[in-house]
Amino acid sequence: MKKVEICLSPELLHLYDIKDKNVVIVDIFRATSTMMAALANEVISITPVLNLESCRLLEKDGYVIAGERDGKTAEGFSLGNSPLAYLEKKFSGKKIAMTTTNGTVAIEKTKSFAKNIILGAFVNLSSTAEYLISLEGDVLILCAGWKGKFNLEDSLFAGALVSNLHPHFETDCDTSIAMRALYEGNEHRMRIFMGQASHAKRLQNHNIEADIDFCLSQNIYDFIGILKDGKLISQKIEN
Amino acid sequence: MKKVEICLSPELLHLYDIKDKNVVIVDIFRATSTMMAALANEVISITPVLNLESCRLLEKDGYVIAGERDGKTAEGFSLGNSPLAYLEKKFSGKKIAMTTTNGTVAIEKTKSFAKNIILGAFVNLSSTAEYLISLEGDVLILCAGWKGKFNLEDSLFAGALVSNLHPHFETDCDTSIAMRALYEGNEHRMRIFMGQASHAKRLQNHNIEADIDFCLSQNIYDFIGILKDGKLISQKIEN
Repeated sequence: MKKVEICLSPELLHLYDIKDKNVVIVDIFRATSTMMAALANEVISITPVLNLESCRLLEKDGYVIAGERDGKTAEGFSLGNSPLAYLEKKFSGKKIAMTTTNGTVAIEKTKSFAKNIILGAFVNLSSTAEYLISLEGDVLILCAGWKGKFNLEDSLFAGALVSNLHPHFETDCDTSIAMRALYEGNEHRMRIFMGQASHAKRLQNHNIEADIDFCLSQNIYDFIGILKDGKLISQKIEN
Repeated sequence: MKKVEICLSPELLHLYDIKDKNVVIVDIFRATSTMMAALANEVISITPVLNLESCRLLEKDGYVIAGERDGKTAEGFSLGNSPLAYLEKKFSGKKIAMTTTNGTVAIEKTKSFAKNIILGAFVNLSSTAEYLISLEGDVLILCAGWKGKFNLEDSLFAGALVSNLHPHFETDCDTSIAMRALYEGNEHRMRIFMGQASHAKRLQNHNIEADIDFCLSQNIYDFIGILKDGKLISQKIEN
């Protein structure tokens, strides 16, 4: 039977074997949720980029550049990390180059070894689970965390994904047991529970309640986000 | 208000400021539970030692030497890591030198910086909480984990301790919120829930159900375990 494990922080990644795994990158507030919004708005692709400077270079090649540092749009950039902004019609059909504090680092650390890099977000949780069930290979869910530490929203998403992968996967590693139980025990009050998260509080200070609501919406999209040739694209699920 | 944080693995310790913190070391299966059993049996002290060789050197100075590697008593050692063995009358009044796979490493990593090093175990959870409430300074709960990874039993204990420290401490960091909720949601079925832990399964394979029962017993002792001058000793709580 296929296995699923959760790595709670990129700082623990060296303890896991990534080779030939389907790696799910999770950065709920807000990188991976935002990437899904962009893909839903039919951007051609999103190129994850490690720093602001590399992003700026791609602007000359016609990319819309997107970047945030510590929760704010980077200076001179068209887009930050607010998912709702990516839904504007003017971005449809464009190529985006994007860098984020935690999310793109997680992609960079894994892309050379993993079998597939898939984005994880609540907005298309079911489709992602369905795709992983259909795919060959074990799954490693990698939480982007916050500056190396465990965070609530990414870990709860990991638990939600394990819950959705059960019983098609072996889910008996300690992180899977713990995060699945945490999610299933708090599923009925996600908004309140997640509102306690330190990152949600930071976002509330920026008056972006609507962003939080978007990031916690479940299954509003029915595609998956996947890295192909260094670019994130959407892929429909065959039913 | 004083703060409590949880570090889920020694591999994440560099992300935390240990200076002047009261650090609670947790290694439920079985190092810290075993140390409490020894202290309850009135050993004079337990000297935590990094490796088997240093332990053997102390034998010549009259120490009873205790050591395990990967869950088994080390060759030539009087004691392993089974708490029940430490309750034998013949060890009362002795000095013990002890090395374990994960627990003593966690002590070693923190002892030069922390204000106090305190042992964490279910067997004296309430007394430990009471002592931390009476003490000045913030608390960092350090889970010994399993070979660097998150484990269920240490993390659940951390959640139980946070639950007992509330409302006397600020408990709003993400790990505290998550582990407290996980503990409170599963408190009524701890034995079953914890039985799923990978380490509990390893112990079950060694036929040591009685050890697991002991390690999960709550509040059978009313002292705390604390490091003083490099030795772990018991200290009564004043009521």
